[in-house]
Amino acid sequence: MLMKNDINFAVLGGGSWATAIVKMLTENADIVQWYMRNTDAIDHIKNHRHNPKYLSSVEFKTEQLKLTDDINTAISNADVLIFAIPSAFLNSELKQLTVSLKDKIIFSAIKGIVPESGLIVGEHFNEHYQVPFENIGVITGPCHAEEVALERLSYLTIACADTEKAELVAKHLSSDYIKTKISDDIIGTEYAAMLKNIYAIAAGIAHGLGYGDNFQSVLMSNAIREMKRFIKQVHKMKRNINNSAYLGDLLVTGYSIFSRNRMFGNMIGKGYTVKSAMMEMKMVAEGYYATKSAYLIITKHKKESKTPILNAVYDVLYEDKNPKRVFKELTDKLD
Amino acid sequence: MLMKNDINFAVLGGGSWATAIVKMLTENADIVQWYMRNTDAIDHIKNHRHNPKYLSSVEFKTEQLKLTDDINTAISNADVLIFAIPSAFLNSELKQLTVSLKDKIIFSAIKGIVPESGLIVGEHFNEHYQVPFENIGVITGPCHAEEVALERLSYLTIACADTEKAELVAKHLSSDYIKTKISDDIIGTEYAAMLKNIYAIAAGIAHGLGYGDNFQSVLMSNAIREMKRFIKQVHKMKRNINNSAYLGDLLVTGYSIFSRNRMFGNMIGKGYTVKSAMMEMKMVAEGYYATKSAYLIITKHKKESKTPILNAVYDVLYEDKNPKRVFKELTDKLD
Repeated sequence: MLMKNDINFAVLGGGSWATAIVKMLTENADIVQWYMRNTDAIDHIKNHRHNPKYLSSVEFKTEQLKLTDDINTAISNADVLIFAIPSAFLNSELKQLTVSLKDKIIFSAIKGIVPESGLIVGEHFNEHYQVPFENIGVITGPCHAEEVALERLSYLTIACADTEKAELVAKHLSSDYIKTKISDDIIGTEYAAMLKNIYAIAAGIAHGLGYGDNFQSVLMSNAIREMKRFIKQVHKMKRNINNSAYLGDLLVTGYSIFSRNRMFGNMIGKGYTVKSAMMEMKMVAEGYYATKSAYLIITKHKKESKTPILNAVYDVLYEDKNPKRVFKELTDKLD
Repeated sequence: MLMKNDINFAVLGGGSWATAIVKMLTENADIVQWYMRNTDAIDHIKNHRHNPKYLSSVEFKTEQLKLTDDINTAISNADVLIFAIPSAFLNSELKQLTVSLKDKIIFSAIKGIVPESGLIVGEHFNEHYQVPFENIGVITGPCHAEEVALERLSYLTIACADTEKAELVAKHLSSDYIKTKISDDIIGTEYAAMLKNIYAIAAGIAHGLGYGDNFQSVLMSNAIREMKRFIKQVHKMKRNINNSAYLGDLLVTGYSIFSRNRMFGNMIGKGYTVKSAMMEMKMVAEGYYATKSAYLIITKHKKESKTPILNAVYDVLYEDKNPKRVFKELTDKLD
């Protein structure tokens, strides 16, 4: 199957990252299946060639798109599925499935934990949908969707235990403005993508509390060391934590004022309660769920890993502790 | 001598980093010797308690300062000398010395190479002034002087082969807003402090050429790996390159729009010639000299280290190559 030239891709999701991925695929594939729930958005794209709410500057050739609000249709017509649905909604979307995922290649472009299972997306598909790990992959940054829309040079890491499949997907995403790299560390890259959102919340809280750039760089330097310890604990293998998929992804999120996770943290640092910050943002930052899941994962390990930043964010978000005091204590644990 | 409570410190230099260090020391020491060339600035500080040109918001208790425009007086009266003179001027300042440095403890807060010798500052004092390495140390960030002025929490690394001396200096720099860490890697921290300025120039060139945040994070992720290879080549020892003194220092410079090196690179990326960028900035960015020195150091090693970012900056600054073309080629060497 992998040798065919007419591999069919389906992108599941209607947000900015899904839109960016569809844009990348349309540089290479004749047709892309694109599922989203929002029928108004589908009509708008069909009539006006732009996604009305996300990356609305991107113009699509609609003859390349098979848009549908039926997830089963999109999946039936595709060999490779790219999921770009917020992790909080993945489970309810998957509950609608009537078609089998058995013969599908599944790539996750989701940065988070499935709240209902507490698993990263690859593990969730493996445990709950019996998709073998060699058919599961991950697409990871560092990559703001907004810069893909602008066709600014970006690098993606495509991870899959089966290199051939990683290369297939990489080939279809590559273009003048997208460079791709292959990795076999699907677990590590997924955890990194999840953890970086927690560290972006930490960066936001620190900023909101009035800490400056000097502290921010110390926080990021500690965060990458903490990320290395965490991932090593859950999935030990040889990896260079300073590769773009880990460190680069942390930096692009932690240093971005556009990151929703950083913004969420910033509001909390400035004195918003967790609830009011969420309401104000009209959405839940991925890192909010990730914090709880990551905390549960690391605390169930007997030989507890040193994760002071994660613990601090957890204390602020879930234990209702005072951010100012928690971060004051955190500063003594960093170096 | 180290057991005395009344250790005398001299700070050599009148710029913003020197001013920040004097501020830190005055939190702990009764008297600080402070040498600078500019007699107008000395008079201004004596009369108005502020350095007129640098960190002018900082108010000094003038009774704590022994200001002088005679480098020999400042050095004679001190046990520990902290040099914070731009590396380009260090040699000409040292030529004025009539007093011996033999019994002095010398800490460098200079981030660069002495152009005349092509050596990092510690090596320069050792080779040209016979100061033994156990009396030489380094003070390194990540630390913008401007945030010290605002008393924003910052972390310094104090490196010396003799731990007792590192601790002595660390103790005198620590305060509510300054945390210090000890290291024995004086060569590595000095090279890191120098190299980060080159990578900040690279970040600036990329920004000036229109590359975005996604690329910037890939550049930094590659830069820290390149820094690790470079330092390992010149001084192999066990070090964690993700510690604040290496990675943190790289990030605070590479991501700062206030970095003079990044600004210099940005102008070149936007089309200024090297000469006109220098004239426009009315000063030479430290990274300009560092680029040449680092390039010479790494190319003289037989087993050449892979340093594509350094090589690209060198080609732009010293080989008059087109930045756009050089960086286009560089993007293929990063991942």
